[in-house]
Amino acid sequence: MSGYHHGDLRRALLTAAVTAIEKSGPAALSLRDLARRAGVSHAAPTHHFHDKAGLLTVLAADGFDRLADQLTAARTGSFLDLGVAYVRFAVANRAHFAVMFRPDLYHAGDPEVIAARERAGRALYDGAADRAGVDPEQAREEGLAGWSIAHGFATLWLNGALPDQGDDPDAAARAILRHLRPDGP
Amino acid sequence: MSGYHHGDLRRALLTAAVTAIEKSGPAALSLRDLARRAGVSHAAPTHHFHDKAGLLTVLAADGFDRLADQLTAARTGSFLDLGVAYVRFAVANRAHFAVMFRPDLYHAGDPEVIAARERAGRALYDGAADRAGVDPEQAREEGLAGWSIAHGFATLWLNGALPDQGDDPDAAARAILRHLRPDGP
Repeated sequence: MSGYHHGDLRRALLTAAVTAIEKSGPAALSLRDLARRAGVSHAAPTHHFHDKAGLLTVLAADGFDRLADQLTAARTGSFLDLGVAYVRFAVANRAHFAVMFRPDLYHAGDPEVIAARERAGRALYDGAADRAGVDPEQAREEGLAGWSIAHGFATLWLNGALPDQGDDPDAAARAILRHLRPDGP
Repeated sequence: MSGYHHGDLRRALLTAAVTAIEKSGPAALSLRDLARRAGVSHAAPTHHFHDKAGLLTVLAADGFDRLADQLTAARTGSFLDLGVAYVRFAVANRAHFAVMFRPDLYHAGDPEVIAARERAGRALYDGAADRAGVDPEQAREEGLAGWSIAHGFATLWLNGALPDQGDDPDAAARAILRHLRPDGP
């Protein structure tokens, strides 16, 4: 088990998982490989996360927590700032981003995932409601529209699929996302 | 080699690849598995596609061709119709969709991919230019915005990540995508 303390080993395995997912995506991840990378017994990941879905559940909850923090911090700005914050989150946390919106890969009903996802959703929809005023259906649709355009832009950017995409995702996102609300602030 | 004619075997391998990608994504695909599924020698896929990237190149080109056809057919409608056509394409061709925008997985410089991708891009940007009028930078940005929101919605939909997403992607896409252009037709 080398010299890890309990919490340190758990963190080391999560860090190794993030690195592996950044390189090859979540599908290729195996707990056995992780143990080898972290230099621990191959029983260690199972002990901490039960199985691969268990580990990805921890990453998803952590990802929604980070996203909620970033969206909450951006909420004092415009709706556009919220979208740019989403793209910035995706670029800075590409392993989490690759897992969070794939509920088939983890335990989406896990209480920590649900709580973190709701917090992120509230930050998004409250941002939309700030602008859309009283109509909750309007706010819901505008929140989904903002989510869709930011998610699509981030996904295409991370895949290198955009033509001449350059190396400044913030500026590129800002130029594109503002078209969601041509009359907005 | 069983009783396949040359073209039939190629098609059978591509069909088997689509089924495998729909089930487990492009990362898990192996030519050896494909050969076993199609009941042919494991040299057959290599003969037809050289390697996995070669097979995915054929799928990507085919996908961009199909997308170009559907966007071209939708162009007589509104910009919204174009976005809905994109989502409909993604839902109906989820294996192609999972490959086309992952240029790291295939030979993105392949002439057939380039030609088909340009045709799809033209259908998208011409649709945007129809609406944006003369300013080419405005048309480019609006095309990218429309692509982003349709791509994001389709990706979230296919992953089952949207809250209460129901079973009618067309109607759901229409309700969300119309927010891209609140003053549009």
